[in-house]
Amino acid sequence: MTEDDIAQIKDAQNFNTSFARGLKVIRAFDAMHPRLSVAGVAERTKLDRAVARRLLLTLVEEGFAKQEGKTFELTAKILTLGYSYLSAMGLDQRLQPYLDELSAQLEQAVSVSVLDGSETIFIARSERVGQIMAYVVRTGLRLSAFSSASGRVLLADLPQDELDRRLADTEMVALTPFTKTDKSAVRDEISRARMNGYCVNEQELEEGLLSVSVPIHGPDGRVRAALNTNCTYTKALQIGFVETAVPLMRSFASQIGPLMH
Amino acid sequence: MTEDDIAQIKDAQNFNTSFARGLKVIRAFDAMHPRLSVAGVAERTKLDRAVARRLLLTLVEEGFAKQEGKTFELTAKILTLGYSYLSAMGLDQRLQPYLDELSAQLEQAVSVSVLDGSETIFIARSERVGQIMAYVVRTGLRLSAFSSASGRVLLADLPQDELDRRLADTEMVALTPFTKTDKSAVRDEISRARMNGYCVNEQELEEGLLSVSVPIHGPDGRVRAALNTNCTYTKALQIGFVETAVPLMRSFASQIGPLMH
Repeated sequence: MTEDDIAQIKDAQNFNTSFARGLKVIRAFDAMHPRLSVAGVAERTKLDRAVARRLLLTLVEEGFAKQEGKTFELTAKILTLGYSYLSAMGLDQRLQPYLDELSAQLEQAVSVSVLDGSETIFIARSERVGQIMAYVVRTGLRLSAFSSASGRVLLADLPQDELDRRLADTEMVALTPFTKTDKSAVRDEISRARMNGYCVNEQELEEGLLSVSVPIHGPDGRVRAALNTNCTYTKALQIGFVETAVPLMRSFASQIGPLMH
Repeated sequence: MTEDDIAQIKDAQNFNTSFARGLKVIRAFDAMHPRLSVAGVAERTKLDRAVARRLLLTLVEEGFAKQEGKTFELTAKILTLGYSYLSAMGLDQRLQPYLDELSAQLEQAVSVSVLDGSETIFIARSERVGQIMAYVVRTGLRLSAFSSASGRVLLADLPQDELDRRLADTEMVALTPFTKTDKSAVRDEISRARMNGYCVNEQELEEGLLSVSVPIHGPDGRVRAALNTNCTYTKALQIGFVETAVPLMRSFASQIGPLMH
């Protein structure tokens, strides 16, 4: 049997290969690849050119992409797919005022993220007007869960065996000279996050950046999301940022939790 | 030939029906329908239940949805699809500081939107901390182009025959008692937006709301997006909001335009 034969059998039951491949095609576009040819998409997705071409033309036909000559780019209509999630989460109007208020009180950007496998995905944020240095996050940005404060807070809520499995499957990639890549060191950080109810990340994500994260508990008591902020490392030490931020963030997290579906 | 036969022939060439249907399934979820059964998705998408089920299970398999019992809901991973577009547009870090600064100067929320057929889609925004009454927009939100200030500014850049075609195809839906539903009245508003280089919408979108929009021109001189703000109708009249906002918005639009890919 060829790979396509297997794909067809899988399709017939509980899976549609074309749909899964099409979603890969969308994700082939990014800041480094805003415009792609059929060959470029085929290369980035490991799909056959004819398949890549058909999926790209489908995106064009449905208004999610446009074609100019031999190159394709996504259109804003793609944003409506993420909007389905955000509005379904009930995050439309209610979450933002809390984030804005916390950001004003901390004088720092704040964000909310959720766990997706071995990554955290940012689902909301509030940024400070005129802030010069900030770790800019945007809805949909992903970070490795194991090396970020938000990820460690979210991983801390997993059952031990599930955490072990994910740790075993993960390759630790150093983002800075400070990034912990030893699994037992990462495990210690996650344990500490569970015990303390917050996590501080010192320069593991970006040199000079300190980030703080606290869990947001849903109505069922489980950790639904992480509330995050960050500060330059030097300033954080000078002003005792962590000591101020953690209690304030906890207070906001307890107000946000009940809003989440 | 059945509809499925036709779909298969179309597929074989330049279109993949399953992929297009899958994208419809994602969009079936919204604030009113955060969780859907197979039957619910089938009803909202007009797809066969077996087809809807297979596409839902594919979303689950790929991590874009989760299943609990008989109901399905989207996961945050869906946001990564929109992120592909935002990062490809180069809107990640560079646009936000301008919006934040304009929002601070106007003391109102501001947003950027682009045209998608007969709708405008919001691609970026900045909101005021502590603002009580604001028309809350979120990335991915859609509005009818014909009844919004942003839409009229964007439609004003279309060639006359293209505008005529879209107007002919559009059903005008009144959102408030003030919404213009007469096509020649809407056409007049669009002409005025073209001539003035800005558009004011008085309570056509929501009672008590005034919105202002100016075009953002790309490096090629064509209108790429609209820059928008809004104010309560009463306050706008009291403080001469439009007279202050328009020149400031134009100045920011001329700085933002060159940033857009």
